[in-house]
Amino acid sequence: MTNQPSTQFANRGRGRPGYDQATVLRHAIDLFNRQGYEGTSMGDLAKELGFTKSAIYHHVPSKEHLLEQALNEALHGLTDMIEATRTNAEGTAHDRLRLAVRGSVEILVAHLPAVTLLLRVRGNTAVELEALRRRRELDDKLAELVTAAVGEGGLRDDIPADLTSKLLFGMVNSLIEWVRPDGRYEPGVIADAVTAIAFDGLSR
Amino acid sequence: MTNQPSTQFANRGRGRPGYDQATVLRHAIDLFNRQGYEGTSMGDLAKELGFTKSAIYHHVPSKEHLLEQALNEALHGLTDMIEATRTNAEGTAHDRLRLAVRGSVEILVAHLPAVTLLLRVRGNTAVELEALRRRRELDDKLAELVTAAVGEGGLRDDIPADLTSKLLFGMVNSLIEWVRPDGRYEPGVIADAVTAIAFDGLSR
Repeated sequence: MTNQPSTQFANRGRGRPGYDQATVLRHAIDLFNRQGYEGTSMGDLAKELGFTKSAIYHHVPSKEHLLEQALNEALHGLTDMIEATRTNAEGTAHDRLRLAVRGSVEILVAHLPAVTLLLRVRGNTAVELEALRRRRELDDKLAELVTAAVGEGGLRDDIPADLTSKLLFGMVNSLIEWVRPDGRYEPGVIADAVTAIAFDGLSR
Repeated sequence: MTNQPSTQFANRGRGRPGYDQATVLRHAIDLFNRQGYEGTSMGDLAKELGFTKSAIYHHVPSKEHLLEQALNEALHGLTDMIEATRTNAEGTAHDRLRLAVRGSVEILVAHLPAVTLLLRVRGNTAVELEALRRRRELDDKLAELVTAAVGEGGLRDDIPADLTSKLLFGMVNSLIEWVRPDGRYEPGVIADAVTAIAFDGLSR
């Protein structure tokens, strides 16, 4: 590994040996989550990765580029899962909603740092505003699933569908506050608990 | 109202005419929630309140003092509610847990900015660490209520009590992401929806 700065940006796509783009991204996401995106400078990122301040720009085009990649990781995972669930012709809307809740828990745990970042986005930059727009699209699709399940008679109809949707996925999203990769409960156990509480309730 | 700086701090307790301590605190909490506590300077607060940078210290002893007051507002509300619920001898543990969930929703909505700040505390200062310690105490008491309700046979026993407690109050706490004082749903409607979903489930 050389410290000699390159004036070309051929390395951008691949990163340097030992620091591929995925590793750079992972470190960046952790920093953004710890310090906030606004509170993280390219200098902080350089320090975290052991680069000099001038070398960092040979590895990372910009801070916003990393944010975009991070938010895309979370958004792609959620979008693909929700599309797969929605276009699954088998079963009722109730079944599909239940699958979407399970799927959301699984994506959240599998992409915990990226989803955490996504759920904390405030909308201060164009990249963040676009992520918020795409999040709203996903939320709308999930709310449509709730409405369809109520319409089919499979879900209680005494709570407005948008309120149900917000509370249901609020419970799912609250996992970012305490779930850890090496935590006490397997993702499957957590997904079972979330769906059992939400659909069947705690009371005996 | 005079701009002449006072060398005494007699005003600290009362604030100035037109800016009582409660108003100063409210502005500070809003700033902390918008910019983060770390990201807010005394200069920002002075600007928000229309004070000069040198005058702000005659109204506010320190930023940390405001944070402490804000976190106490949320913690006192939650502590009093949980104590009242726990020491209520009437009804089952299941009833008391249900009351605690309702009460948590009501406190959250009534003290939304202070509770939002409390739920976002990371523990970077002594004041924050103390607030986190008191939050954990409250969480432990709520988890004990869940365990008692399971023990009495009123709650399903196939989900670990600590997981139930985390998901239940995770759903409640997720309200800070979207509830607004002038929002679409009354606090009572939201509390009904939360308890209906959590205890009775969404499925028909």
